[in-house]
Amino acid sequence: MCPSAASTSADPAPVPTTEGAVPPEFTPVDTHAPSQPEVVAAKNGTTPQHNPYAPRASDFLSNVSNWKIIESTLREGEQFANAFFDTETKMKIAQALSDFGVEYIELTSPAASEQSREDCKRICQMGLKSKILTHIRCHMDDARIAVETGVDGVDIVIGTSSFLRKYSHGKDITYIIKSAIEVIEFVKSKGIEVRFSSEDSFRSDLVDLLSIYRAVDKIGVNRVGIADTVGCANPRQVYELVRTLRGVVSCDIECHFHDDSGCAVANAFCALEAGATHIDTSVLGIGERNGITTLGGLIARMYVVNPEYCKSKYNLAMLREVENLVADAVQVSVPFNNPITGFCAFTHKAGIHAKAILANPSTYEILKPEDFGMSRYIDIGSRLTGWNAVKSRVEQLELELTDEQVKDVTAKIKELADVRTQSMDDVDTVLRVYHKHVSSGALGLRQPARFDELLAEHKSQNGSEAGDEPAAKKQKTSA
Amino acid sequence: MCPSAASTSADPAPVPTTEGAVPPEFTPVDTHAPSQPEVVAAKNGTTPQHNPYAPRASDFLSNVSNWKIIESTLREGEQFANAFFDTETKMKIAQALSDFGVEYIELTSPAASEQSREDCKRICQMGLKSKILTHIRCHMDDARIAVETGVDGVDIVIGTSSFLRKYSHGKDITYIIKSAIEVIEFVKSKGIEVRFSSEDSFRSDLVDLLSIYRAVDKIGVNRVGIADTVGCANPRQVYELVRTLRGVVSCDIECHFHDDSGCAVANAFCALEAGATHIDTSVLGIGERNGITTLGGLIARMYVVNPEYCKSKYNLAMLREVENLVADAVQVSVPFNNPITGFCAFTHKAGIHAKAILANPSTYEILKPEDFGMSRYIDIGSRLTGWNAVKSRVEQLELELTDEQVKDVTAKIKELADVRTQSMDDVDTVLRVYHKHVSSGALGLRQPARFDELLAEHKSQNGSEAGDEPAAKKQKTSA
Repeated sequence: MCPSAASTSADPAPVPTTEGAVPPEFTPVDTHAPSQPEVVAAKNGTTPQHNPYAPRASDFLSNVSNWKIIESTLREGEQFANAFFDTETKMKIAQALSDFGVEYIELTSPAASEQSREDCKRICQMGLKSKILTHIRCHMDDARIAVETGVDGVDIVIGTSSFLRKYSHGKDITYIIKSAIEVIEFVKSKGIEVRFSSEDSFRSDLVDLLSIYRAVDKIGVNRVGIADTVGCANPRQVYELVRTLRGVVSCDIECHFHDDSGCAVANAFCALEAGATHIDTSVLGIGERNGITTLGGLIARMYVVNPEYCKSKYNLAMLREVENLVADAVQVSVPFNNPITGFCAFTHKAGIHAKAILANPSTYEILKPEDFGMSRYIDIGSRLTGWNAVKSRVEQLELELTDEQVKDVTAKIKELADVRTQSMDDVDTVLRVYHKHVSSGALGLRQPARFDELLAEHKSQNGSEAGDEPAAKKQKTSA
Repeated sequence: MCPSAASTSADPAPVPTTEGAVPPEFTPVDTHAPSQPEVVAAKNGTTPQHNPYAPRASDFLSNVSNWKIIESTLREGEQFANAFFDTETKMKIAQALSDFGVEYIELTSPAASEQSREDCKRICQMGLKSKILTHIRCHMDDARIAVETGVDGVDIVIGTSSFLRKYSHGKDITYIIKSAIEVIEFVKSKGIEVRFSSEDSFRSDLVDLLSIYRAVDKIGVNRVGIADTVGCANPRQVYELVRTLRGVVSCDIECHFHDDSGCAVANAFCALEAGATHIDTSVLGIGERNGITTLGGLIARMYVVNPEYCKSKYNLAMLREVENLVADAVQVSVPFNNPITGFCAFTHKAGIHAKAILANPSTYEILKPEDFGMSRYIDIGSRLTGWNAVKSRVEQLELELTDEQVKDVTAKIKELADVRTQSMDDVDTVLRVYHKHVSSGALGLRQPARFDELLAEHKSQNGSEAGDEPAAKKQKTSA
C-alpha cells in the first residue's frame, strides 16, 4: 500500500537515480526549478518553506530506471488496419523481439480464431527469452482456452468507462469485480501470471476504478493495467492517475497509451515517473487507428534519462532491423520522422548546428547514433551553412585558409546553394579549388571570374559526381 | 509579474475553461485525482487540508484554450535534410498556412543567403492573414537586414546552454544581455514585434536563464522563447520551467520543442498548461534531425481539450492538403501513423471496438473525422471481428437473422479471415448468402457443404471484387 512498494517485479533491476545516470554536462531543470509549494509561497510574499534544490518528494516513486516492456505488436499490432500476420511472420517477429530483449510479448487472444489459438501455442513452444502473454476478455470461456496454450501469463481486460456505467449503472461495477475475481483466481490456480486492466481508464469514474483495482490487488493479481484506449490522456493527467493508483495497490502497474493526440510516448514516460512498472509498446506503434506508444519512441525517451540502463537491457543496434521486419510485414514505410531510425534523425544542417556538432556532438545530440548502429551526417552545403561549419571542414581537409578566406568561400557556397543544395562532394570541390586559387596568389572571390573558371576546369577534369560522400548517401537511403 | 498576466497578446481570444469545453461524457481524471498536497497529507495519516475536487491552484495559468501557432515550416522546416524550397514553393506553402489560419509564419533569416532575403521580402508582400516573422541570430548585422524586409516581427535567438557557459563563464551572460538589449531596442524602434529566445534552454543554468529573460522583459520584448533544441525535455520538466518563467516575466512565452525523444507534442501541451502562449510547429514536424512539434499533432492534442476553439481558429479540413503540399515539396510520405491524417487514423478493427463504434463513435474516437474532412472505416472482416459488430452490419443490410444465426455466420467469417482478411464486400457476400441459406430453411453452418456451395455459386455469378466498398477503398488509399 505504500509508495516504496512501487515495484514488485520478480527480478527488480538496479535503480540508479536519474541524476546519477545523465551525462555530467546535463543539468536537469527540474531539480533546480522550485516545486509548486515554493512558487505559491513566493507569490504570497512569504519565505519558501522547503529547499528548492532538494529532490522532489515524488521522485522516489519514479521507475524511469526500473521498467519493463510488454511488446504488443502481435496483439495490438494485429488490430492495425494493414496487419494480417501468418504463422511464419508471427514467429519471425516474436524471435526478433525476444532477441532485441523485450521482457514480455503479448499475443492475440486464442479465443479470437482457431488460427490465433494454434499460433499462440506455437510461439509458446519457441523457447524465447521473453515471457509470452495473451490478452483476453474477462470471460471464463476465454480464460479456459488461454491457460491451455502454454503462455506465461494472461492479460485480462474489461471496459469500465463512463459509457458503460451510463447504460447499466451500479450493478456493473459489482458484476465486473465478481467476474474479474473469478477469472483471476482461475488463472492464478494454473500457476501463471495474471494482469487485470480496465479499458478507457481516463474516461472511467475514478472511485469505480480504484475500487476494482483494490479488489483485484487484494486477491493477488500480478499487475493492474491502465489503458488510454481512445488516446485522450495528457501527461500530467497520467502522472496523477498512476500516482493515485500507486497508493492504492501494491502490485505492479502496466500502462497502455494510444497515440490519437500524439502523447503516447510522453504519457508512458510520465506513468513511469509516477510509479508504473510496465509499458505496452508495439513496433512503429501499429495498432487500432494510428496506434500506441512506439517501441523505438519509448527507447529514445528512456535512453535520454538513463542510456546505460537501456543498453544493459536491450540490443539497441537491432532496433532498425525489428522495425524494418514489421514495416515489411504490414506494408508501410518507416516514418521519415521516426525517432532514432528516421532517415534524418542524425542529420545536422543549419550552420550554427553543424559547427557545434563538429566540435562536440553532444551539443545538439541527446542520443548517440553509434549506440543504435546509426551514423551522423553533417550537411554543410545548404544555404543555411555558416563559416564556422565550413572552417571545420577546411581543417578536416587540411587546407590552410585564414578566417577571412573561409568567410569568403562560405559566401560562394551559399551562392551556389541558393540554386541547388550542394553535396559534401560539391563543397569539398569548392574548398579545394578555392584553396588552389588563393595559394596561387589570387585575391579569393574578389577575382570571381578566375575562380569560376578554375571550378569549371576542375569539374570537367574530375567528373561532377565523384568524391567522398559515402556517409551521406548511406544515410539518405537507409530508411 | 503575476500569473494573471499569463497572456498579454494583442488580441486575446475568449478563454473558456477546460471543464466547460470538453464533451459532457468526458470526465477528466485530473479534476478528481487528489493533487500533491492531499496525497502527502493522506500518506501521513492526517486529514487532507484541501478539497480534492476543487480546481487545482495552477489551473488558472493554463492557456490550453488561448494559444497561438508560430508556424516554422519555412524556417525550421528549411533545416530539414530534404528541404530545398524555391521561391514559388515557399509562397505556396505560406499561402496554404495562412489559409489554414496559423497566426504567424516564421521565415529563414534574410541574412542566410541572398535568395533567403529576396524570398522574405516577397512573402511579406503577399498580404497574408498570418503575421510574418523572421528568425535571426542576436547580431545587429542580421537585425538591420531583417527589419528592411517588411516583416511584422523578428525572432532573435542566442545560445545559453551550459556548454556555452563552460567555455566562457560569467562574461557571457553579461554579454548576452547587453547584445540582446541592443538588438531588441533596435527592432522595437522600427515599430515591429520582437521575440528573444534562448537556445537549448533545458540544458541552460536556470538562474542565468531567468536573469536574461527578466532583463529583456523589462525593456518590453513582446515574447520570450524557450527552446528544447536537442529534444531532451520531458513534459513535467517543461511544465515546471514554463510555470517558473510565468512568474518572472509579464510578456508572452513561446515554446519550441524538438522530437528526438518523441515528446514534442506533449511538451507543447504541458507548456500551454503552464501558461505559455505561443507554440512553434512545422508541417509534419520537418526540421533539424527528426524535427519539431507537428502542426497536425498539436491540432489533434488541442482539439481533444477544446474542439470548438480549434474549429473557430483553423480551417481543420485543410490540414491534409497542407500536409500533402509540404510532403511533396520535401519528397517524403505522410507517416502512416500520423495523427488525424494517417491513412488508418479512423479505422476500427477489433470486434469489441467495431461493435461500440457502430453504436456510438465517441466510444472509441476522441477526434471527429468529419471535422477534418476525413471518414471513418470499420473493418469487420478480420479474424478479430466479433458477432456484435457483424450484427450491426446485418441490421444495416436489413437482413433478418437471430442472434444465434449471427454468431453462426461470425464463426464462418473468422474461419475465412484466418486465411485472408475479408473486405467489407466479402463480408456482405457471406452475410447475404448465409441469409439466403437460412431463409431456405437450411440449418445454417450445421450444413456447411451446402453453404459453401451457395457461396461459390454467388461469387461466380457476381464476380469476386464487385460491391459496395467505396469508403474502404477511399480510406486505404488516401495517404
